[in-house]
Amino acid sequence: MKTKIGPKDRIVPLPIVLVVCGTLKRPNIITVGKVGVVASDPPVIGISIRKTRYSLELIRANGEFSLNTPSSGQCTQTDYCGIVSGRDCDKITAIGMTPLQGSCISAPILEECPYNLECRVLREIDLGDWVLFLAEVLETLVDEDKLLDPVTGRVDVEKIDPIVYLGSTDEYRRLGEVVGRGFQEGRRLVRE
Amino acid sequence: MKTKIGPKDRIVPLPIVLVVCGTLKRPNIITVGKVGVVASDPPVIGISIRKTRYSLELIRANGEFSLNTPSSGQCTQTDYCGIVSGRDCDKITAIGMTPLQGSCISAPILEECPYNLECRVLREIDLGDWVLFLAEVLETLVDEDKLLDPVTGRVDVEKIDPIVYLGSTDEYRRLGEVVGRGFQEGRRLVRE
Repeated sequence: MKTKIGPKDRIVPLPIVLVVCGTLKRPNIITVGKVGVVASDPPVIGISIRKTRYSLELIRANGEFSLNTPSSGQCTQTDYCGIVSGRDCDKITAIGMTPLQGSCISAPILEECPYNLECRVLREIDLGDWVLFLAEVLETLVDEDKLLDPVTGRVDVEKIDPIVYLGSTDEYRRLGEVVGRGFQEGRRLVRE
Repeated sequence: MKTKIGPKDRIVPLPIVLVVCGTLKRPNIITVGKVGVVASDPPVIGISIRKTRYSLELIRANGEFSLNTPSSGQCTQTDYCGIVSGRDCDKITAIGMTPLQGSCISAPILEECPYNLECRVLREIDLGDWVLFLAEVLETLVDEDKLLDPVTGRVDVEKIDPIVYLGSTDEYRRLGEVVGRGFQEGRRLVRE
């Protein structure tokens, strides 16, 4: 039996990222849980920012931002950047992270985050209190010690150790055990 | 030191959901990893569907779909629904799930998935090979045995036991341990 609990803005689980906008000299950082991949070839991601946030103006100003994946050990910093406003303080300094010049955008990336996407806004969609930015991923950067797996050629997610966000319970979690392999697991159900 | 690995359509981690479209008599199901929350008040979610997929026509036909969160024990079914096309077979029957009449949309929900969102399309955005549907969440349904926590009034994510998807390594994972609390963890960095 199903029970109605009203319309919720919750998908479980969600990623959570640190979006850096502005410039290397005047960067700002904001925590974003309203984030997802929307297309491939070229890769396009979406982030939604509340209209009251300072970062909205900065993203509009130069049309670029970086999307930085924090590790599970960085959840205090991640949470903090969602609580306070860059209008009132220098959040990057407060959390002890280092803005680095990106490879192809004016907004910096975060040195301490192991996985960084450099993004350029393609379009902006008005959703009432929120603005959805659709942005092309121009480059991906990873830490040298988190280089691609030499066998699979893929990023080692174990070393990224990303945060899994659960809005329903306001929890930050780590990744749990592997329960299946994509594009393999389902083959056993395919009738020959 | 950061190393460039080229533009990637990867955010780590991602949610993964079973989208059901069509009607109770002729439903279809598709696995979607390009999914996210884009607004609150009212809640709006986004899903991207490749233009070649059968589900695209069905979603356009009635403008409604349900978003069903599978549990970690359902990753074989979840993977399968991303591999085969509903043009060729009845996927819901093949995976042994039951379409149920939703509470306010014509597309059914999946009985066996513990957490279901009923969605109505607000707009469609063309992204080349992909179409992004932005849809309002009209209702959320949960299993009776996964009712809201009586203390917090929130959905018990432990009982949902959702799949965490990692595109970089094509892994389905379970949730790991709690490493922090949202809107609490960061307060220790706020200067009084």
